[in-house]
Amino acid sequence: MTSATDGQKKQRKPLLINAFDMACPGLQTPGLWKHPDDKSRDYNTIEYWTNLAKLLEKGKFNALFIPDVLGGYDVYEGPGNIAAAAKSGAQWPVNEPSAVISAMAAVTKNLSFAVTGATISEAPYHWVRRLATLDHLTKGRIGWNIVSGYLDSAARNLLNGEPLPDHDARYDRAQEYLEVVYQLFLSSWADDAVVLDKKRGIFSDPERIREINYQGEFFKVPGPNITEPTPQRLPVIVQAGSSSKGLKYAAQNAEAVFIVGMTPEGLGYKIKQLKEEVKKAGRDPNSVKVVQLVTVIVAPTHEEAVAKFKEYKELSDIEGAQALFGGWTGIDLAQYGWNDELDKLEGEGNAIRSMIDTWTKPFPGDPENLKKTRAYIADRVRIGGSGVVFIGTPEEVADEIEEWVDVSGVDGFNFTYTITPGSFEDLVELLIPELRRRGLAWDDYPKEGLTFRENIYGLDREEPTYLPSDHPAYNLRWRAGESRQEFEVKLKKTLEERFKKSK
Amino acid sequence: MTSATDGQKKQRKPLLINAFDMACPGLQTPGLWKHPDDKSRDYNTIEYWTNLAKLLEKGKFNALFIPDVLGGYDVYEGPGNIAAAAKSGAQWPVNEPSAVISAMAAVTKNLSFAVTGATISEAPYHWVRRLATLDHLTKGRIGWNIVSGYLDSAARNLLNGEPLPDHDARYDRAQEYLEVVYQLFLSSWADDAVVLDKKRGIFSDPERIREINYQGEFFKVPGPNITEPTPQRLPVIVQAGSSSKGLKYAAQNAEAVFIVGMTPEGLGYKIKQLKEEVKKAGRDPNSVKVVQLVTVIVAPTHEEAVAKFKEYKELSDIEGAQALFGGWTGIDLAQYGWNDELDKLEGEGNAIRSMIDTWTKPFPGDPENLKKTRAYIADRVRIGGSGVVFIGTPEEVADEIEEWVDVSGVDGFNFTYTITPGSFEDLVELLIPELRRRGLAWDDYPKEGLTFRENIYGLDREEPTYLPSDHPAYNLRWRAGESRQEFEVKLKKTLEERFKKSK
Repeated sequence: MTSATDGQKKQRKPLLINAFDMACPGLQTPGLWKHPDDKSRDYNTIEYWTNLAKLLEKGKFNALFIPDVLGGYDVYEGPGNIAAAAKSGAQWPVNEPSAVISAMAAVTKNLSFAVTGATISEAPYHWVRRLATLDHLTKGRIGWNIVSGYLDSAARNLLNGEPLPDHDARYDRAQEYLEVVYQLFLSSWADDAVVLDKKRGIFSDPERIREINYQGEFFKVPGPNITEPTPQRLPVIVQAGSSSKGLKYAAQNAEAVFIVGMTPEGLGYKIKQLKEEVKKAGRDPNSVKVVQLVTVIVAPTHEEAVAKFKEYKELSDIEGAQALFGGWTGIDLAQYGWNDELDKLEGEGNAIRSMIDTWTKPFPGDPENLKKTRAYIADRVRIGGSGVVFIGTPEEVADEIEEWVDVSGVDGFNFTYTITPGSFEDLVELLIPELRRRGLAWDDYPKEGLTFRENIYGLDREEPTYLPSDHPAYNLRWRAGESRQEFEVKLKKTLEERFKKSK
Repeated sequence: MTSATDGQKKQRKPLLINAFDMACPGLQTPGLWKHPDDKSRDYNTIEYWTNLAKLLEKGKFNALFIPDVLGGYDVYEGPGNIAAAAKSGAQWPVNEPSAVISAMAAVTKNLSFAVTGATISEAPYHWVRRLATLDHLTKGRIGWNIVSGYLDSAARNLLNGEPLPDHDARYDRAQEYLEVVYQLFLSSWADDAVVLDKKRGIFSDPERIREINYQGEFFKVPGPNITEPTPQRLPVIVQAGSSSKGLKYAAQNAEAVFIVGMTPEGLGYKIKQLKEEVKKAGRDPNSVKVVQLVTVIVAPTHEEAVAKFKEYKELSDIEGAQALFGGWTGIDLAQYGWNDELDKLEGEGNAIRSMIDTWTKPFPGDPENLKKTRAYIADRVRIGGSGVVFIGTPEEVADEIEEWVDVSGVDGFNFTYTITPGSFEDLVELLIPELRRRGLAWDDYPKEGLTFRENIYGLDREEPTYLPSDHPAYNLRWRAGESRQEFEVKLKKTLEERFKKSK
């Protein structure tokens, strides 16, 4: 891989360009609700979200990625202490992410929505109905960002006071959860089960609806699914988290993966690991797209961008930053002095392990002898949170993006905000036009009524709204015309083969 | 109570006028998706629901009441046989009811939404976040229709293959569930916890957010709640179901109750039972409003209305009707001959017991010697389902409504459809103007941005968006200005008193 500055311009393909926003104030840069132009406090209004959706569609964004947590960041000065997060408004409070999607879908035609759902939150049968409903209502513009849950504070409240299960056990359970989801979506109703035969009075054909009779270690779900086949048949499978179990899970299941690297080299290293796992899972490495978290501070001149950065940093909340870091890693920075080095820290049980690695182990591209102290971490996290920050003119930021793409091979970015919707307006007005000039952003959506999967993989495949044929769930689908008996033979074979592979 | 036909016209107060529609085809009158004007098949589109919401607001409806089931009606010719429901499209398939509320709220200002949530579906902490989010997004136009779940087919899929718990155990669990909901909404955040003090950098004051530390038999939920105080502080509590446990539960908790009587006298009898329980619970009987399910077939002339009725009945699906009846009561009509009487039937474990009573015991006002045969039941259910049917001119239907109001003391109606939105259009264009002339419907919403609670109780109370002061949860609210210590003393006292009462 070579840098974009070498010789002549490369042949570019459009990046995946997502906005990253959550139903809370202070997503990655806590404290900026104090900024006069920031509207993050309006997270609990419909207007905030419909205005954002219209803006993103104007900018031809691929998707709005909506992360979620179900508990507070209470590790810092804790455990069980919500004070810093509450005061600073660092992802606290948090509304339910999917509730506002129908309102956003009503004012857009092509923008997709990646909605987060944790596999510890609700029964898979229940979640499938919620997801399927959204895929219907948006006409196929839904992806599911699968998380296995990382906050003890969420688990305690969801699981009757029990703490979060062990990280690996969470992934085993998450894999079963996903199996149930696949089968309810794909194996319970045939594509042609809904008949609408007015003459014979048949709405749907019971012969083409079957129970899945799933019997696993964690879940027993007989079915049948209660929702009819959805526009995409299965929402796009998105996954966040890059622990080794997480990468394997993503390699086996995800169509898009949300990974965070602190340097292009570090990101490239993680992507390489992921793609090796994807190959092991028998899939084309190109079938799994990777996006990276970034906060962009862009202005017409370099000086204005730097001035903005300084202004935002001044207003950002360093206590809130440490609260966020505590939740992400399980590490309470309050127990350390400002200049203590954290290199030798071991991450704790239920944290996002990959994030601990990011912050405690030297990564390719890190400046040599960089000391990762509490002061360093708090200072970095207070602007841009767990991601990276690009600052400058549209050209400077686009150069940085090109470098990241060239060095890491990343497919796109989750762009988050410092102030909202101001940061997104800057992207639409300043950065995206520059990316477009370089071939890094498309001129327009390739058609009206684009589904999420078409958004990601393009229109050139045989079934552009459905899974690529190398996806492990591809053959779980009961197709039109396939008799129940034919399908059950196919299904049995598919499940046996997958069971062998997963051993 | 006297009939409206006696002497001069009475002083009337406006009824509660709700629409009753669910995210499925064939809600109460299965089979009419075959009618050329019926759009119930579009239940899975946003447009269907936003058009309906706009129509209802035009008609000055109080609320859209959205019932829900989480499984199929598989008792008829069963158990476990979905065939009749699937073929006829009788509440099958079913989407998630709350997903489309934000889109409807975006195109209305005053219409409220009663959304159904079953206490077996998800953790109370999770459901509270979903409900609170909706109360925020709609600016206080949300009610929660609490159901304890009645379909085994739903329970099996939600509860890892386990059957539905026993009816009474379900209510015990539901009472605890509601306790958790009350405390998360009312006792975790003070009214003034969200400070937004830009100078001191305080979004919310952690001293005014507390854990609830709920420890019950079924639920252990530490809290704190993850959402900030909502416009109504607590969504309106609505309850459906009128078994004796159900009535007691409603009397202790509900602000509006959805009861179904087959005659005005039968309904009046149930309302009397309910109001006695309400008094026992220490509440003003007027604090609990009652609505009845009705299907109206109205036309400018009597002949047209009867012709419509005949046309709809012809198209309705008698197999689907028996499938619905099976789900409601647990009784599989297929095991009986058409002319077998069902008077002596005992209802089965997990059914809606009150519904079995309705169909198997003689009620005040039933024609004498009426034989409740399979044929009679199937014929009644195929039009109007579990409710009653009023047919005629606007005047005739309004007369019938007046009679029901006078005889039973009912506060309003859940109007459901035969064809949708046609039935609702007929209400708006024909029936409601007649009700308005009689003082049975208001001329307009009393203000813009009406909350659900204002909708039900009017604007004349001291705190029109909050619970009436005789509601058992009234004092669970942490009020502005009340110190944490003061509140905790009050809370302890309130909980002790309520515990004593419930013994």
